[in-house]
Parts: sequence; C-alpha cells; structure tokens
Amino acid sequence: MNFVNEYCYFYDESLFIEESRPGFKKRVVRGENLELWFWRISGEAIGSIIHQHTENEQLGIIVRGKLDFRIGQEDNAERVVLSAGDVYLAPRTIWHGDSIFIGDEELNEVWILDVFSPPR
Amino acid sequence: MNFVNEYCYFYDESLFIEESRPGFKKRVVRGENLELWFWRISGEAIGSIIHQHTENEQLGIIVRGKLDFRIGQEDNAERVVLSAGDVYLAPRTIWHGDSIFIGDEELNEVWILDVFSPPR
Repeated sequence: MNFVNEYCYFYDESLFIEESRPGFKKRVVRGENLELWFWRISGEAIGSIIHQHTENEQLGIIVRGKLDFRIGQEDNAERVVLSAGDVYLAPRTIWHGDSIFIGDEELNEVWILDVFSPPR
Repeated sequence: MNFVNEYCYFYDESLFIEESRPGFKKRVVRGENLELWFWRISGEAIGSIIHQHTENEQLGIIVRGKLDFRIGQEDNAERVVLSAGDVYLAPRTIWHGDSIFIGDEELNEVWILDVFSPPR
C-alpha cells in the first residue's frame, strides 16, 4: 500500500465520481476505522433528506460555500447555516440534512469533508 | 449538547490552544469514535518526531502550506511533500512524522486537519 500517492492531489476534479443525484460528486478515502467523503455539490442542488445513522458518528467540515441544514433530535432539529471553516459533529442517531447548498462565488459549489467512523 | 454552535467559526484564532512546543497551536473536537485535531503550525517550527500509534488510525488533510514528512513502514518511511488539498492515511502502526513545515505565503503557517479513530 502506498499511503500517500493514492491520496495526493485530492482536489483533482477527474477523481470525483458523479452521484445519481444531479449536482453531487464525491471522492471517498476508506480506512479501517475512518471513511472520508469529500463532496463537491453544485449550488442549489436538490436531494439531501434529513436522516440519521444508528451506527456511524459523522464529523463534517465546510470547505467552500455554505450549508444551510437541520441538525438535532428528531423533534427538534434546528436549521443552521455553516460557512467555510465551520465544523459540525453528528453523534450516532442524531438527525441531520434537509440541506440547502449555497455555492461559493468562484465555482458556485459547496465542498464538504464528511468523516465517518466506523466506515459506512 | 449543541451540535453546531460549539463548533462554528472553527478558524477563530482565539479558540486555538498553544502547545508546549513553540509554533504549534491546536483545536480539538472530540466525539465518541472520532477526534479532530486542527493544527496551526508556524513555518519551520521544530518538534515533529517520527512515531506510530498502535491503536489509532489517522487521516490527515493539508489545508494551508506544505508538509514535508516521512510515512511508511519503520525501515522504509519515505519522505514526501504534501500541499494544500492533499490527504494521507496512516493506518495503525504506520510510522509518520519527522516533519518539515513549509508555511504558506499569506500567514507563514501550515494548517492540518488530523482525524483519529478511536479518539487518542
């Protein structure tokens, strides 16, 4: 295994995979305990439903653009807006999603690093 | 628990803690399975020794500046240079460190997001 070369140049657009939902592309790095999903999402893309994971903890880091989403207990998931540099932690069972993606000025994209443990 | 407000404005300098090693500041977000260390390291700061963790997997994302370090098996840890946007994965027991930190032009700092699982 090469620990670095496989993962260098992480922003290389050609290495992102289109999702079935229009406007969503992602790149995945999977380890033993950790899984990173690097999302590039077009501004105003539709299709983020509110959900929870019963097994996976999730840490999200906003890299570009803004994420306007809900997070919390099922009956009390507040809407908040996160910007580049903001981080959220979604413990197991916590609801999150119903997202509105507000693209950045340069690319009209939202970039989010989601880290899961265990891998999904 | 407030899943977001505690973690918003992640780049707020006042929320970083100085380490005993000069030039190293970090901010920690600790979950159940995941722990994020957000490093702000001055260019040319000294004190990164090569090491391994027998229990923790580590994923590192370079956000600013460059990291010139060694990673691999103990007898074969190659020196590589990672730039902003590059990612590395250090599975348990893999050696990494002996780092030279090359600050970015704007701040003369290196910013690295290190995610561990389990938390250290």
